[in-house]
Amino acid sequence: MSVHKIAVIAGDGIGPEVIEEGVKVLEAVARIAGGFSFEFTHFPWGCEYYLEHGTMMPEDGLEQLQKFDAVYLGAVGYPGVPDHISLRELLLKIRKQFDQYVNVRPVRLLQGAPCPLKDVTRDQIDMVVIRENSEGEYSGAGDWLFRGKPEEVVLQTGVFSRKGTERIIRYAYELARKMGKSLTSISKANALNYSMVFWDQVFEEVGREYPDVETKSYLVDAASMYFVKQPERFQIVVTSNLFGDIITDLGAAIAGGMGLAAGANLNPERIYPSMFEPIHGSAPDIAHKGIANPLAAIWSASQILDFFGHEGWGANVLDVIEQVMVDKKALTPDMGGTATTVDVGTEVVALLSTIHIKHV
Amino acid sequence: MSVHKIAVIAGDGIGPEVIEEGVKVLEAVARIAGGFSFEFTHFPWGCEYYLEHGTMMPEDGLEQLQKFDAVYLGAVGYPGVPDHISLRELLLKIRKQFDQYVNVRPVRLLQGAPCPLKDVTRDQIDMVVIRENSEGEYSGAGDWLFRGKPEEVVLQTGVFSRKGTERIIRYAYELARKMGKSLTSISKANALNYSMVFWDQVFEEVGREYPDVETKSYLVDAASMYFVKQPERFQIVVTSNLFGDIITDLGAAIAGGMGLAAGANLNPERIYPSMFEPIHGSAPDIAHKGIANPLAAIWSASQILDFFGHEGWGANVLDVIEQVMVDKKALTPDMGGTATTVDVGTEVVALLSTIHIKHV
Ligand SMILES: CC(C)[C@H](C(=O)O)[C@@H](O)C(=O)O
Ligand SMILES: CC(C)[C@H](C(=O)O)[C@@H](O)C(=O)O
Repeated sequence: MSVHKIAVIAGDGIGPEVIEEGVKVLEAVARIAGGFSFEFTHFPWGCEYYLEHGTMMPEDGLEQLQKFDAVYLGAVGYPGVPDHISLRELLLKIRKQFDQYVNVRPVRLLQGAPCPLKDVTRDQIDMVVIRENSEGEYSGAGDWLFRGKPEEVVLQTGVFSRKGTERIIRYAYELARKMGKSLTSISKANALNYSMVFWDQVFEEVGREYPDVETKSYLVDAASMYFVKQPERFQIVVTSNLFGDIITDLGAAIAGGMGLAAGANLNPERIYPSMFEPIHGSAPDIAHKGIANPLAAIWSASQILDFFGHEGWGANVLDVIEQVMVDKKALTPDMGGTATTVDVGTEVVALLSTIHIKHV
Repeated sequence: MSVHKIAVIAGDGIGPEVIEEGVKVLEAVARIAGGFSFEFTHFPWGCEYYLEHGTMMPEDGLEQLQKFDAVYLGAVGYPGVPDHISLRELLLKIRKQFDQYVNVRPVRLLQGAPCPLKDVTRDQIDMVVIRENSEGEYSGAGDWLFRGKPEEVVLQTGVFSRKGTERIIRYAYELARKMGKSLTSISKANALNYSMVFWDQVFEEVGREYPDVETKSYLVDAASMYFVKQPERFQIVVTSNLFGDIITDLGAAIAGGMGLAAGANLNPERIYPSMFEPIHGSAPDIAHKGIANPLAAIWSASQILDFFGHEGWGANVLDVIEQVMVDKKALTPDMGGTATTVDVGTEVVALLSTIHIKHV
C-alpha cells in the first residue's frame, strides 16, 4: 500500500473551505480505489500567520515541506497584507525554490460549465497551457534609480536562460507528442527584441527533435484575440511566465470561470515536491460563509491523482465534476445554485461511489 | 479655410486598399462640412520599398514627415521581411521618434457589430484604452549573453521613467475627468516588483490631483478575465505598452473584431505629427482582392477628424459606420457580406451626404 504524503497549506480566506472538500474527495478516492492512501499534514501558514509572526512561513518552512511528495495549496492573500509579501514569500517562493518550473493549466470546457462565448461548443475549448514558472518576466530582477527625482527611472528585467527556456519548451513538446496534439508557442518577438526572439529560436531548435509534432506560433496579442474568437486553434500551448499568467486567466474566463480553474506547479524530476492549487484567490469577501465554490480545488485534487500515477481516478473525478454541473443539484451561488461548499464536496463523494467508473 | 496636411503611408498588403477608402471619407466630410480641407501626400514606404532600397523609409524620412500635421498609416508587414525590421524601422520608429506617447484605442461595441460574447448588450462595452506608447516593456533594452553556451542567458529590460509614466497617467486622468468617467489602471505589482510597483505608486500620486475621478485598479490577468466576463467594469483604462497591446486586441475581439479596431498615436503637445492607423495587420493573404474591410481605417479617419477639432464630424462618421453595419447592404466577406472594399467606402460617403447629421 503506497502512502502519498501531502502538505496542506490551506492559506487565507476561502482557501481552507475549498481545500477541505478537496481533501475529502482525495480520501474518498483512496477508500474506493484501494491500493493507496493519502497522509495529510496541515500547515497554518499564510497571512494570519504573518500578522502574528511577521513571516508568511517559518524560516525552515521549505525544509519542512521538502519531506512531502506534494503540496496542496488553497489561496493566499488578505486585506492589509501587501501582495508582494503574501505572494513573494509563499506562493512564488515555493514555486521558485522547489524548481516547479512547469505550470500545467488545463483550459477545458466541461459539460455543464457556463461559457460566456456565443456559438462555441464544448470540443472547441480543450487545451492544456504549459506556462514557464520559474524565471522569465517574473525573475524579480530590476532597479529603481533616482527615486523621487525628475530623472527617476525604474527597470524590470526579464531573465530567460537557455536551461530554463529549453526545459519548458521540451516539456511541452513531449506532452504534445504523448497526447498526439499540436503545440502552439505564444511569444512577442516583434516587440520584445531580446527575450522573445530567443524564445522563438529555442522553440524552433527544440522542435527539430520533434518533427512529428505539428507546431504553430502566435503573438500574445493575437493569441488573446483568438482565445475569444477561435479557441479551437489551440491544443497544447507553451508560453512564458507572464504571458501564461494572462492567457490562463483568459482561459479560465472562457472555460467556466475562476471557480473551475486549477493549476499544477510541477518539478518534473521530482527532486522537490510539486504543488497543486485552484488558481482563484482568497476571496475575503465571501470567506467564512460556506458558499465558496470548491470545484477548482477538486479539479486540483484530480491533478494530484494524475501526478501520483492514478490517471484513471483523475479522469473519474473530472467526470464527476461534469456530472455535478449537469445535474445542477449541488452548485454554489456563483454557479447559480444554492448549495454550500460542503454540499458540493459531499455530492462529489456520493457520485464517486455510485457512478459508473469509466477510467481505471 | 484651414488645410490639414496629412502624410499617407499606406504600406503593405491591404494597407493601400483600406486607406484609400479612409481618404475618400475624409475628402467627403471636408466637402460636405466646408470650412476645412485635407491635403494628402503619399509616401510609398514599407516592405516593398525595403526590398528595393534596403530600408523601410529613406534616411530623412522622419524629417519629411515632420512637415505634416498627421500621418495616416495603413499596415506594414510582408512575408519575407522580418517583423523586427518592418515594425522597428517604421511603425515603432515613428511612434518613438515623434514622441507619440499616447495610444488611444476605443473599445466600443457599435450597433450592428458582431460580438462573440453571450448576454452582453451594447452599452456594456464602451471604453477607451489609453496605452503608454513610448517606453516600458517595449524600450528595446536588453542583452544576450554567452550565446550558444549552456549558460546562455537573455535579458529584456522594461524601462519606466518618471516622466513617461506620469504623463500617460495624467493624460488618462484628464480624459476621465473631461468625459466624467471612471479610470481603471491595469498593472501587475504582485509579480513585477519594480516596474509595476512604481506604476501603481504614480497612479495613486497623480490621482490625488483628481479627487473627482473615480478610480479602480486591476491586475492584468484579472482584467483579461473581466474583459470577457464583465466588460462593463471598464470605462477609461490606462496601462503600459505591453499590457495595452494585449488588452486592446482582446478589446477588439469583444467589440466586433480586428476589422473594426482603430488606434491613434498621439503627441499631445503637437510638437510632432500624430499618427492614425487601423490596428489590423497587412493581411497579405487577402491583399489585392478588393475584399479587405475598410471600416477600421474609416474609424481611424474619424479619429483624425477628432484630432483636428472636428469632433462632431468624427461622431457622424461613427454613426455612419453603425448604419452600414445595421443595414448590412455593404459589408465585406469577413462581416458576412459580399461587398468590395470600395463599395463599403462608397456607401459610407453616400450615407454621410444623406443621413440626418446629428453632431456638428
Ligand atoms: C498571484 C500571482 C503572483 C500569480 C501569478 O501571476 O503567477 C497568479 O496570478 C497565478 O497566475 O498563479
Ligand atoms: C506590430 C506590433 C509591434 C504592435 C505592438 O505590439 O505595439 C501592434 O501589435 C500594435 O498593437 O500596434
